[in-house]
Amino acid sequence: MLVVMQSDATADQIAAVVGAIRAMGLTAHPMAGPTRTAIGITGNVVAVDPRTLEILPGVRELIRVTRPYKLASREMHPDDTIVRTPQTEIGAGGFTVIAGPCSVENETMLLRTAEYLVARGVKLLRGGAFKPRTSPYAFQGLGRKGLEILAKARRETGIGIVTEVLDTETAGAVEEVADVLQVGTRNMQNYSLLRRVGRAAKPVLLKRGMSATLEEWLMAAEYVLSEGNRQVVLCERGVRTFADHTRNTLDLSVIPPVKQQCHLPVVVDPSHGTGKAAYVMPMALAALAAGADGLMVEVHPEPAQAISDGAQSLDFGSFDRLMERLRRLGEALEREVG
Amino acid sequence: MLVVMQSDATADQIAAVVGAIRAMGLTAHPMAGPTRTAIGITGNVVAVDPRTLEILPGVRELIRVTRPYKLASREMHPDDTIVRTPQTEIGAGGFTVIAGPCSVENETMLLRTAEYLVARGVKLLRGGAFKPRTSPYAFQGLGRKGLEILAKARRETGIGIVTEVLDTETAGAVEEVADVLQVGTRNMQNYSLLRRVGRAAKPVLLKRGMSATLEEWLMAAEYVLSEGNRQVVLCERGVRTFADHTRNTLDLSVIPPVKQQCHLPVVVDPSHGTGKAAYVMPMALAALAAGADGLMVEVHPEPAQAISDGAQSLDFGSFDRLMERLRRLGEALEREVG
Amino acid sequence: MLVVMQSDATADQIAAVVGAIRAMGLTAHPMAGPTRTAIGITGNVVAVDPRTLEILPGVRELIRVTRPYKLASREMHPDDTIVRTPQTEIGAGGFTVIAGPCSVENETMLLRTAEYLVARGVKLLRGGAFKPRTSPYAFQGLGRKGLEILAKARRETGIGIVTEVLDTETAGAVEEVADVLQVGTRNMQNYSLLRRVGRAAKPVLLKRGMSATLEEWLMAAEYVLSEGNRQVVLCERGVRTFADHTRNTLDLSVIPPVKQQCHLPVVVDPSHGTGKAAYVMPMALAALAAGADGLMVEVHPEPAQAISDGAQSLDFGSFDRLMERLRRLGEALEREVG
Amino acid sequence: MLVVMQSDATADQIAAVVGAIRAMGLTAHPMAGPTRTAIGITGNVVAVDPRTLEILPGVRELIRVTRPYKLASREMHPDDTIVRTPQTEIGAGGFTVIAGPCSVENETMLLRTAEYLVARGVKLLRGGAFKPRTSPYAFQGLGRKGLEILAKARRETGIGIVTEVLDTETAGAVEEVADVLQVGTRNMQNYSLLRRVGRAAKPVLLKRGMSATLEEWLMAAEYVLSEGNRQVVLCERGVRTFADHTRNTLDLSVIPPVKQQCHLPVVVDPSHGTGKAAYVMPMALAALAAGADGLMVEVHPEPAQAISDGAQSLDFGSFDRLMERLRRLGEALEREVG
Repeated sequence: MLVVMQSDATADQIAAVVGAIRAMGLTAHPMAGPTRTAIGITGNVVAVDPRTLEILPGVRELIRVTRPYKLASREMHPDDTIVRTPQTEIGAGGFTVIAGPCSVENETMLLRTAEYLVARGVKLLRGGAFKPRTSPYAFQGLGRKGLEILAKARRETGIGIVTEVLDTETAGAVEEVADVLQVGTRNMQNYSLLRRVGRAAKPVLLKRGMSATLEEWLMAAEYVLSEGNRQVVLCERGVRTFADHTRNTLDLSVIPPVKQQCHLPVVVDPSHGTGKAAYVMPMALAALAAGADGLMVEVHPEPAQAISDGAQSLDFGSFDRLMERLRRLGEALEREVG
Repeated sequence: MLVVMQSDATADQIAAVVGAIRAMGLTAHPMAGPTRTAIGITGNVVAVDPRTLEILPGVRELIRVTRPYKLASREMHPDDTIVRTPQTEIGAGGFTVIAGPCSVENETMLLRTAEYLVARGVKLLRGGAFKPRTSPYAFQGLGRKGLEILAKARRETGIGIVTEVLDTETAGAVEEVADVLQVGTRNMQNYSLLRRVGRAAKPVLLKRGMSATLEEWLMAAEYVLSEGNRQVVLCERGVRTFADHTRNTLDLSVIPPVKQQCHLPVVVDPSHGTGKAAYVMPMALAALAAGADGLMVEVHPEPAQAISDGAQSLDFGSFDRLMERLRRLGEALEREVG
Repeated sequence: MLVVMQSDATADQIAAVVGAIRAMGLTAHPMAGPTRTAIGITGNVVAVDPRTLEILPGVRELIRVTRPYKLASREMHPDDTIVRTPQTEIGAGGFTVIAGPCSVENETMLLRTAEYLVARGVKLLRGGAFKPRTSPYAFQGLGRKGLEILAKARRETGIGIVTEVLDTETAGAVEEVADVLQVGTRNMQNYSLLRRVGRAAKPVLLKRGMSATLEEWLMAAEYVLSEGNRQVVLCERGVRTFADHTRNTLDLSVIPPVKQQCHLPVVVDPSHGTGKAAYVMPMALAALAAGADGLMVEVHPEPAQAISDGAQSLDFGSFDRLMERLRRLGEALEREVG
Repeated sequence: MLVVMQSDATADQIAAVVGAIRAMGLTAHPMAGPTRTAIGITGNVVAVDPRTLEILPGVRELIRVTRPYKLASREMHPDDTIVRTPQTEIGAGGFTVIAGPCSVENETMLLRTAEYLVARGVKLLRGGAFKPRTSPYAFQGLGRKGLEILAKARRETGIGIVTEVLDTETAGAVEEVADVLQVGTRNMQNYSLLRRVGRAAKPVLLKRGMSATLEEWLMAAEYVLSEGNRQVVLCERGVRTFADHTRNTLDLSVIPPVKQQCHLPVVVDPSHGTGKAAYVMPMALAALAAGADGLMVEVHPEPAQAISDGAQSLDFGSFDRLMERLRRLGEALEREVG
C-alpha cells in the first residue's frame, strides 16, 4: 500500500497520515521526492481497510499493492495443484477434455452422448440439470430428474459428471451425483454458495464472472479454499467487453497470469466464450497452445434440435475432428489430450 | 427476429430456413433484397430458442429483435409503478433519499445515524447486516445481531429499513426486519434468490449487475415480478469499464432508457458508483437532474473510523450540504426531495 | 513508482534492483515488510522508462504512481483556465451552450440555424465542414465550401464557430474561419494533429477518445499545451463499454475528477454520448448539475431530413424546451446558461 | 435494416414509416406479428442514413443488418488475399514472423538485431522511426535518421522493413524505405492517413484500434482498399477492457470471425497485446493455433536497456525458444513458420 501526498501537503499533514497508519498497527515509510512525498505501508494490510486514509487532508491517492489472496497464491503454494476425480485428473500435465450438452434434455440423448464420448477417450461429461437462464420463461433444466439421468450415465458408462450447483438448497442432491461441482459465471460472487461448495467433498469448477478481474476470480477461489476444499479448477469462459463479433470475449491471455500467480489448474470453455460452433475448434486449439490444463466444450448429437445453446454446440463429426487436431497438437507440445 | 442469408444462399437453403421457422410454430416473412434475402420471423419467439437457425446452411447471421421481458415492460404496463413502504413511496414524482452507513457496525453508531437522518427528513435508512465482501477475510457484517440493531433503530425513530438479502437461508430473518429487501450487484443473476424475494411481502431494491445490460437487468426484475412481487425498485450503482478514475463507471445515461422501456422506479447509488466521497455530491445532483426517482447514499458519523467503505461515505456536514443543494435543485425541477 | 519484490526474493536481487534504480539517476527507498520487500522510487521518473525494472530477477510487479502530465495538472496550475473567444468565454463559472447541426449541409439551413440560435442567446455554433465518417462511402462534409458557409454565418449573425480539424493539410483553412478548433474523438491521439493545433492561435476543443482513460485524455491535452496553446477545452462525448442502451456510455462521472486534477474547462456532448434525441435533455441537465462548464449539442431545423446524425439532433422546439429547463436549473445552481 | 414499431403503433404510423422508406428509394416489407409490426427494408441502405426513421412516431427501434464494407468483404471477394513483399508473402498458408525492436535506437543495435533475425530465417524486421507516444515528453523516435538506419539494415541484410507511418507529412519518406507501411492503433480511424496509404505502392499493416469493433476495423481497411491499395494486412494487438492482468486484452477470438468475413490476412502482436515478455510465448503459440497468418513480436538484444517497451521485448535466447516451439507447432498444423 502506498499513500501519495499532494505536492503542497504540509509536514503536519504528512505526520498525521503516518500517525493514522501506525494507529492501524502498520508500519509507515515516508519517502520524500522532488515534487511530493509518498508513504509506503508494510504490515498485515488485509485486516484493516486503509482506503479511509484517502480522505485525510493532503492525501492525493492511495495505491494498493498487496494481493489479498493467500491460499490461492502460488507464492504461498509453489507446487501445481492436481485436481482428482475417480476417472481422471486435471492439472497434472495433460489436457483434460470435458464435453457434453448444455443441458440434460432426456435420457436417450444423454446416454447416447456419454457412450459416444467414452468411446473417444473422454473421461468427464458436462451437462446441466439445474440451468441458470436469463429469462424466467426459458427452460430451466430437468432438475432432480436430470440428476438421475446423469447418475445413470455415470453408472452405465463410467464417465465422470461435471454439473452445475445453482443454490445451497439443491447442493446436497448435486453433490451426490457429481464428480465435479460447477459454479457458474453468474454465481462467481455468490458467497453463500462458494462457502457451501467449500465444505463439499467433491472438486469445484469455478467459472470466471462476466466482468471479474483476475484478482476477484482468485478471491472467489479463496472462499472455497478457505472452507477446506482445496480441489478447485478455474474455468475461463469469456468476459464482457464492447466487442460484438463473439458472444463474449474469450480471454485466453488470462492463462499465463493465472499460471504465474496461482497453483490451481485452469480450463477454457470456448463454447460459451464464442457462442458459435464454427469458432470453437480454433479457440480450443489456441487454449491448448496457450497452456490451459483442459477444455470444456458443448457437444450435442443434434445441435439443431438442442433445447438450449444449440448454436454453440458441436455435433459428433465436428467433435471427432476437434479431438483429432487436439491430439496432433498435443503431441507437438508433449501433452496428452483426453 | 430476423434471419440474414448469405449473398450466395440458394433457393433451397432459403426454403429450408423457412421450413425450420414454421416447424417452430412461427411465421416466416422472406424478403428478397438486391444482394441477399432476409427472413423476418413473427410469433412467440421467447418460447423457442431460434439461435439454432444460425447453424443452418446458407445463414449468415441471426438478429434478435423482441425484448424478452413482459411484466417489466412499459409497453405491457404503461403507468409508472409506485413502490410503497410504511414510511414513504418511491416513484410517485418525488426524489427519495435512502441514506446510512455501508454496514451496521454497532448500536450506538446506527442509532445516532438514524436519529440524525430522521431529523433531516430522510425516511429510509440503509445499512448492511449481511455483507458480501470480495475477501473471505474481510468483515462480513454483524449478521442477525445487525438485524436486531436495525429493528431497534426502526422502533425508536420510525425510519424505514433498506438492507441486503444475501441468501435464501437468511432471507426470512431479513424480511422480518426490512421495509425494503436489497439484492446486491453480485446477486443480480442469483435466480434462486430472485425467486425467493419475488415471494416476499416486502418491496425489493434490485441493484444492477457489474456488467449487466439494460435487458439483463430488466430480466432480473422479471424474475421477481413473475413470482408475484410487483414492488421492485431498480438501482444503478456503476458498471465495470476500462475507466479507472472512479471505482466504477456510474451510468446515469441508463436512466432515460429505463424510464422509456420500464415502469419501475429507478434510484442511483453514487457512493458505490464513484467510490469517493468528494464525487458523491455532483453525481447525486446529476442523478436528480437526469430523472432518477431517488438516491441511495452512504453516510457515516465518522467516515475515517468506518469498518467498510469509509472513503466513499459522507459525514453529517457533507450530507447536510447535499440535502440543501438537492432541495434547491428539486424546487427548480418541481420535485420534492426527501 | 513502486517495485514490489517476490516474497522469496533474495537480498542480492533486492540490491540489484536498488542498483538499477540508482543507475537511472533515481532514488531507491527499500521497505521490508512481513512477507516481502517493496522499493519506492523518487526522482524524475518521466524521463526514463522504469518498466524495464519489471524484468529483473525477483521482481513481482511495478506500480506506477506519478501522473505524467504537467501543464494540464491542477497541482502545477491551481487556478481555473478560462478559454476565450471573441463572442464568449468558457470556464468562467457560466454554462456555455455550443449548438448546431452535425454537418454543414447547405447555406440556407446553416444560416437559418445560426439566426435561430443567436435569437436564443447561444454564442457558439457547431457544424462540421470536414467530417470523419466510419464509412468511406458516407457523406464526408462539404469541405472548403462548408467553411465558406460557416464564415458567412459568422459574418452575418456574429455567432462564433466551432468546427472540426481533420488533418494538418486543411488545418490552416479551418483556422482562418473557426473560433474554436475541434479535435474529434478518433483523433485524440493523432499526435501530429495535436501538435499542429498546439501552434494555432485559436482555442482547441479536445474530445475524449472512445476508450481514453482520464490520464490519456489529459496527456493529449498536454501535447497541445506543450506547443504553446494554453486555450484548451475538454469535451466528454461518451466512451465505449459493453452497454448497448445508448450509442456510447456518456461518462458524466469523469467531470469531478477532471475538475480535481486539471484546470481546463470541460463540456459535455450528450448528442453523441447517447445517440438519441429523446435522451439529450435529461443528460444535458445532468451535465450542468454534475459541474460541467458547458454543453455541445446537435440541433437541426428538420432532423428527419438531416444528412447525418438526424436521430440524435434536437429540432428547434426541443431545443427551446432544453434551454428553458437549463436556465431554470442554472438559476438554482447560480450559474448563467448561454 | 429492420424498423420495429411500438406495440400500440397505429396503422397510420406504420403507413408513414413505409412511405418514408420508399421516399429513400428503398423497399419496405411490413410484417405484422402478434404484438407488433416490424418493417424490413431492402435496397442500397449505405447511401442513405436510415437512422432518422427512428424518430418517426410509433417507431420503437431500428435494427441495422447490412454490414457496410464491400471491398474488405469475403462475400464480394471469396479468395484469400496474399500480401507480397520482395522478401516474403503473408496469407499464403504460412505463418509469417515479423520481429524487431519497438523503436530504432541506434545503428549498431538495429544491425545486430537484423543480422540475428536473418540468421533465424525471419524475413521481416519491425522497428519504429516515428513513434506515437502517450507523453509529449517521451522519446519520439529517431525520425528520418531512424529511416536511414532501417534502409541500411535492409541493404546489408536483405531483410524487409515494417515501420510505422505517423502522418501524411512523413508518409513519403517512410514509403521510400519500408516494405510494409504500418498504421498504428491510435491512427486506425485517422482517415486522411488511411487515404494516403491507400494511394501508396507498398502493402499496409493496419493495427486494430484500442476499442474498435470488427466492423469498424474492416471499415478502416475499406478506406485503404477503396483508394486502390489492395495489399492490406490486419493486425490484432489487444483491445481495451476492464481486465488489468495484461496491458491490453489480446482478442484472439477475433481471428475466426475475421477469416470468415474478410479475405485479408491477419497477424497478431502479443507484445503489445500482453505488455509482458513472459506472456508473449504462450500467446504467440495460441495465435498460430487459432489460425492467424503471422506474428509481430518485439525482440531486443538487451531488453533491460531498451529505450521503450523493454518490459515486453524478448531477448535473443527467448526468441530462439519461441521460434523452435512455433516451428514444432507449425509442423503439427502443416503450416510453415518464418
